[in-house]
Amino acid sequence: MSIRIGIYGYGNLGKGVELAIKQNPDMAAVGVFTRRPPEAVKTLTGIPVYSVSDAEKMKNEIDVMIICGGSATDLPTQTPTLAELFNVVDSFDTHAKIPQHAANVQAAAERAKTTAIISAGWDPGMFSLTRLYSSAVLPDGKDYTFWGKGVSQGHSDAVRRIDGVLDARQYTVPIESAVNAVRAGQTPDLSTSEKHERVCFVVADESADKARIEREIKTMPNYFADYKTTVHFISAEEMAREHKGLPHGGEVLRIGKTGVNGEHTHVVGYSLKLDSNPEFTASVLVACARAAARLNQEGVYGCKTLFDIPPIYLSAQNREDLLGKLL
Amino acid sequence: MSIRIGIYGYGNLGKGVELAIKQNPDMAAVGVFTRRPPEAVKTLTGIPVYSVSDAEKMKNEIDVMIICGGSATDLPTQTPTLAELFNVVDSFDTHAKIPQHAANVQAAAERAKTTAIISAGWDPGMFSLTRLYSSAVLPDGKDYTFWGKGVSQGHSDAVRRIDGVLDARQYTVPIESAVNAVRAGQTPDLSTSEKHERVCFVVADESADKARIEREIKTMPNYFADYKTTVHFISAEEMAREHKGLPHGGEVLRIGKTGVNGEHTHVVGYSLKLDSNPEFTASVLVACARAAARLNQEGVYGCKTLFDIPPIYLSAQNREDLLGKLL
Repeated sequence: MSIRIGIYGYGNLGKGVELAIKQNPDMAAVGVFTRRPPEAVKTLTGIPVYSVSDAEKMKNEIDVMIICGGSATDLPTQTPTLAELFNVVDSFDTHAKIPQHAANVQAAAERAKTTAIISAGWDPGMFSLTRLYSSAVLPDGKDYTFWGKGVSQGHSDAVRRIDGVLDARQYTVPIESAVNAVRAGQTPDLSTSEKHERVCFVVADESADKARIEREIKTMPNYFADYKTTVHFISAEEMAREHKGLPHGGEVLRIGKTGVNGEHTHVVGYSLKLDSNPEFTASVLVACARAAARLNQEGVYGCKTLFDIPPIYLSAQNREDLLGKLL
Repeated sequence: MSIRIGIYGYGNLGKGVELAIKQNPDMAAVGVFTRRPPEAVKTLTGIPVYSVSDAEKMKNEIDVMIICGGSATDLPTQTPTLAELFNVVDSFDTHAKIPQHAANVQAAAERAKTTAIISAGWDPGMFSLTRLYSSAVLPDGKDYTFWGKGVSQGHSDAVRRIDGVLDARQYTVPIESAVNAVRAGQTPDLSTSEKHERVCFVVADESADKARIEREIKTMPNYFADYKTTVHFISAEEMAREHKGLPHGGEVLRIGKTGVNGEHTHVVGYSLKLDSNPEFTASVLVACARAAARLNQEGVYGCKTLFDIPPIYLSAQNREDLLGKLL
């Protein structure tokens, strides 16, 4: 029988989940739950749309609810609340607040005997797994995480809020010389701003002072002030043509030493080049939904992360095939 | 209390395990078990040497036995036999025979209520994990595994058996154009010989016919006949100076599609550049020994692989730190 999935929230991530479910024959999408009027939402594949207020009624028709809200304001309340009713998966990605979020979700899921997998995606998610495996195997070593080249939604929004800016797209770009040094096995001390530069494409109002906009971007604290930042003013047409996608990616590296006197260097690298950040993240959430359903069936309740889950629980293939063909 | 490790077999891998244990403060090496006369073996760090026949007597002094024999003749019998007495870890790497080996070890470990982790290392091992995670997340995709640049012990031995060859080292080298095509998101059909070439360094007897040796190498079935093979004749001095190490590595790639019509391509890459193949493999075995000890304490018995183990069991760090700092 298929694993029946509910999709809670229908932005880019929710749409990605809908599409990812279609790639997994052991899964079925029950429908989308939205805060908007359901009749105003049309799904990509024609699955039904419900109001979020109908979710509770459908408790017995859904094996796992994938929560596709934002980390800033949605997930901190949605995930614990929904974990009282459903097995859930989320992509909570405010790294510093993960322990608190985990504690809140754990309390709810334990009470309700549900299984919740939080902070799934690629960072946190696949990148975190690489950091964990690599540091467990090479304890004498140093980690590096590079992000990009890719669109940062938060930085794009920050530029859009500047007076005279009609539209903006910000790319986070890893600094080539830094990446190459680490790939070569060196272990420089690098701050985030020494690892990345920021490239902005801006559509400005015709009457706006571009020099002022550029200055406001480059001096914006936290977002840009510490970084090498480049600003390109482009037309609305060029923005629509060249920057409509949401690509992202990055690379996690660990440089580790072994030997009698640390004379051998090992470089472990994990990289992602994603045409669509939300669709890849959604694909991780869907694999985690499979794991959540299985763990719950086995009586494993509470708040889990990818760190806690045997990898095999994510796969649709059976163990015999995996040991014979993939191991 | 430390996890007490026995090292069964003391070649390159066993030495690597001895060194890796020193990097892990939660572990202690009890000693080496050898088929040679113990007094003939001197360990790198001064840990005791015992005869393999003494292993059974030391059952209560060892939490995990790491078995460092070869896959061809040692491990198929050693791992099931030792799993009757100890929690064990091995690096069994004959891919086609893993299911049979797993079944043999499972029977022994279940009977004895021990925990056995087989086929740990990097391929099978870390590469397999990447293949599993990537295919679970991107079911509509294609996998590629490239090996090298690195020394293949089996191919080096095959060259050494040729008449007139005094010493030989064979490097497996991934074909750059093939790797780059896949990294760029293409999905060509590639046989193993279309992905790799073979480069041999040979020290020949002065009186030997080098043309004949080169011909015998290049036409050797299975090992070389299907591959682009290059043979370099060098002096014994150059061999000792330039080819004394055992570097290896490689790259696993998965190209996956998502979207309404598969319009988005994602490239997942995992690469290793290892100065010492046996020391890195040994480091994986030691992390797995930690997992074996923990699983056994929790009453999880039988034959496991990296696919079956929650990643967190490999790490010496506690869950709170991992969720707060690494996730």
